[in-house]
Amino acid sequence: MTWNRRHLLTLEELSVAEIEQIHTVATAFKKVLGRSVKKIPALRGKTIVNLFLEPSTRTRMAFDMAAKRLSADVISFDAASSSTTKGETLRDTAENIAALGADMIVIRHNCAGSPLYLSNILDIPVINAGDGSHEHPTQGLLDTFTMRERLGPDLRGRRVVILGDILFSRVARSNIHALVKFGADLTLCGPSTLVPRSLEGLGVKVSHDLRSALADAEVVMLLRIQHERQTATMFPSLGEYTSMFGLNSTRASWLSPKAIIMHPGPINRGVEIDSDLADGDRSVILDQVTNGIAVRMACLFLCAGGNPASVTAGE
Amino acid sequence: MTWNRRHLLTLEELSVAEIEQIHTVATAFKKVLGRSVKKIPALRGKTIVNLFLEPSTRTRMAFDMAAKRLSADVISFDAASSSTTKGETLRDTAENIAALGADMIVIRHNCAGSPLYLSNILDIPVINAGDGSHEHPTQGLLDTFTMRERLGPDLRGRRVVILGDILFSRVARSNIHALVKFGADLTLCGPSTLVPRSLEGLGVKVSHDLRSALADAEVVMLLRIQHERQTATMFPSLGEYTSMFGLNSTRASWLSPKAIIMHPGPINRGVEIDSDLADGDRSVILDQVTNGIAVRMACLFLCAGGNPASVTAGE
Amino acid sequence: MTWNRRHLLTLEELSVAEIEQIHTVATAFKKVLGRSVKKIPALRGKTIVNLFLEPSTRTRMAFDMAAKRLSADVISFDAASSSTTKGETLRDTAENIAALGADMIVIRHNCAGSPLYLSNILDIPVINAGDGSHEHPTQGLLDTFTMRERLGPDLRGRRVVILGDILFSRVARSNIHALVKFGADLTLCGPSTLVPRSLEGLGVKVSHDLRSALADAEVVMLLRIQHERQTATMFPSLGEYTSMFGLNSTRASWLSPKAIIMHPGPINRGVEIDSDLADGDRSVILDQVTNGIAVRMACLFLCAGGNPASVTAGE
Repeated sequence: MTWNRRHLLTLEELSVAEIEQIHTVATAFKKVLGRSVKKIPALRGKTIVNLFLEPSTRTRMAFDMAAKRLSADVISFDAASSSTTKGETLRDTAENIAALGADMIVIRHNCAGSPLYLSNILDIPVINAGDGSHEHPTQGLLDTFTMRERLGPDLRGRRVVILGDILFSRVARSNIHALVKFGADLTLCGPSTLVPRSLEGLGVKVSHDLRSALADAEVVMLLRIQHERQTATMFPSLGEYTSMFGLNSTRASWLSPKAIIMHPGPINRGVEIDSDLADGDRSVILDQVTNGIAVRMACLFLCAGGNPASVTAGE
Repeated sequence: MTWNRRHLLTLEELSVAEIEQIHTVATAFKKVLGRSVKKIPALRGKTIVNLFLEPSTRTRMAFDMAAKRLSADVISFDAASSSTTKGETLRDTAENIAALGADMIVIRHNCAGSPLYLSNILDIPVINAGDGSHEHPTQGLLDTFTMRERLGPDLRGRRVVILGDILFSRVARSNIHALVKFGADLTLCGPSTLVPRSLEGLGVKVSHDLRSALADAEVVMLLRIQHERQTATMFPSLGEYTSMFGLNSTRASWLSPKAIIMHPGPINRGVEIDSDLADGDRSVILDQVTNGIAVRMACLFLCAGGNPASVTAGE
Repeated sequence: MTWNRRHLLTLEELSVAEIEQIHTVATAFKKVLGRSVKKIPALRGKTIVNLFLEPSTRTRMAFDMAAKRLSADVISFDAASSSTTKGETLRDTAENIAALGADMIVIRHNCAGSPLYLSNILDIPVINAGDGSHEHPTQGLLDTFTMRERLGPDLRGRRVVILGDILFSRVARSNIHALVKFGADLTLCGPSTLVPRSLEGLGVKVSHDLRSALADAEVVMLLRIQHERQTATMFPSLGEYTSMFGLNSTRASWLSPKAIIMHPGPINRGVEIDSDLADGDRSVILDQVTNGIAVRMACLFLCAGGNPASVTAGE
């Protein structure tokens, strides 16, 4: 098959075949990243603008790295330096970046739908690097890539638990869309304030009982508790969250023996996860980071019009 | 002819032939920018330092893009990170950058004359990216490039209006110098506090009557009203400015039928210009942005000692 | 000889032969920097992450320039953008950067020992760009490189004075280790609050009398008085420091006739040094900056596993 999209906006709109296509290209790129010279000339002469209107360190660095591995040039437009554009509309900012000759825009924005909006007015590919509480598609792609790498390519019926602040999490939302498409047996778990019953409408199970949720799960994906913001309103205290839903070795023993532990980072050691689990054999947290480069390279490559056959020949 | 300058400091000091030389090279580079691979190896191995001691997003990005299109390396020295050099003189900062081995410095500074000062003490080319209320020569070059592209190369007698805050505008000042040299019929228009009669000394007309100024004009260049700063002192209110001098469709109808509307950005929609005009057929605002890359490539290329014949052969 | 280290953490642990090896490679690279195209492909395809968790402009720019001269890609992780990793441990930050696929980390951190710590947990080379009041090894390497360039390669018995705030200076500490190894006749001088007698334990002389310290010295290295911080506690006033220990032409006349004046920058003109001396014939302050690029290129090259014979053949 060939890739027919110019933008990567959501996982909700992608087909299983499209996600598999990205994963296949990412597998090829991951081999490149294992070599001494990790760079290929696929996007030489192209300029990617990282338009990060919300603070970010690791996602920005990951896209920067992915672009450079493809030999693209990268120009950063950070929130920190955007004071001078105060009062300028997002449309004007984006049209200006396109007029500068950017070949692609990677955007992070605190408003859901911003990437879709830009894709409608710009002639160049738009990659969503996280929009509000909506989606973070490259995170969902790297997470499912990591699951398929560890559990096998077919996720049908595999027991996956996402644990924590589901309600406000774009990471959760992208993973839910992908995992439902893949036919995984997905349970969302956490305090009822953060994991309302209404999420069942997405085609998943909702549980507020940690023990039954974790029982025999093959994947548990933790989400960061953003304690700066939510303690006061969503649960009584951080300590209480940890005592009820923090992953520790006792609770991890409920999982399937071969279960993997995932986290999008940055982790709060001792809050949503104990240190010994974060650093233990079952943790694939750093694999997620590494896979994120290969997956983002694949997204940039495909949306820039790269021919997947040129990199996956012989796979 | 050949280019004999190492620095680009002001348009006041350039001859018409020199401006035309830059425009000719920019025309050649604009063709490159229309190709799929927009990069040429002209400055490969050279390092350009962007010394931006005043906040800037779009001009910094434009110089960054122009340098990368020429295959130069770029190192940024932003105001945001300059706290550590508190107390260091501009001379020491600049001499250090030169000692690091920079091949060229692009400087933005809030003091008029800073680029000239650096050009006197450094052995490497200095490009003025805006110095106080003095000049912004690359903006003037891209603006006149855009006018010549649209109206034809000969600007003699063409009716041009610059409208808005002329007094504090380095953009206006650079354009005035260039347009007077080109023999344009130039009128400066705006409230008398922002467009004093004394500006007539530059060889231009000054008008405080919008209707007569716009009548049959072929170009109207709007300047950004920096309302954060000037409302209190220079005119009664933003609404009053808009009601008196904001460009709307009624007033635009006074222009010549083929007139173009220019703005250096970022625009205040609904203040100095109505949205329908900013996005309309007569607007060349985004062309200015695109032309700015080609023009800045030409400036970097020529000041670095590039041979214009090597890129304009066959033009 | 060959280079057997993967990390550059301190000068305390380096042998004279290792320092000389770095200097030999730096000499080769300095010749490259004198050419029109100052770039070599030694680290093409490698990505270096500058992890600067303490504000820095000039050291960050110097490492950025050095990396680009070697054709490496550079990704910056600045203190300014690190707010999002608040609460993340240094270990997690560093392991994430390694997992992104960085080939090398250059770290500046306000905690002594941070680079050593990272070198113990990461599989990639770690370069110390300054850790608290501990060491700044590349500064010590470029300073001794500059001395050997000016005074001759053998520093045994050469009279060197380091003057100023020794107690809190990582620059001083790295220079002390290197100069003691080289057998220089080293005197530390300054107010007793900043140059305690206990420093004699490092194998150097301590003097609180400027005249006798400077008498016949062949090198005087000034340190920056960080007056933002120390005035209140360590000496009565800035003026008093200058009157007692500031280098002026009278005091410079006490030096050996061919003495060189050094300073790591940024300089406080009129505080620790008079302007006429900073800009005079004996000053090698800008040579230090230039040499810093060649020396840092050598450090990056050697720690990345580069073969010194490949660049020094024919030296």
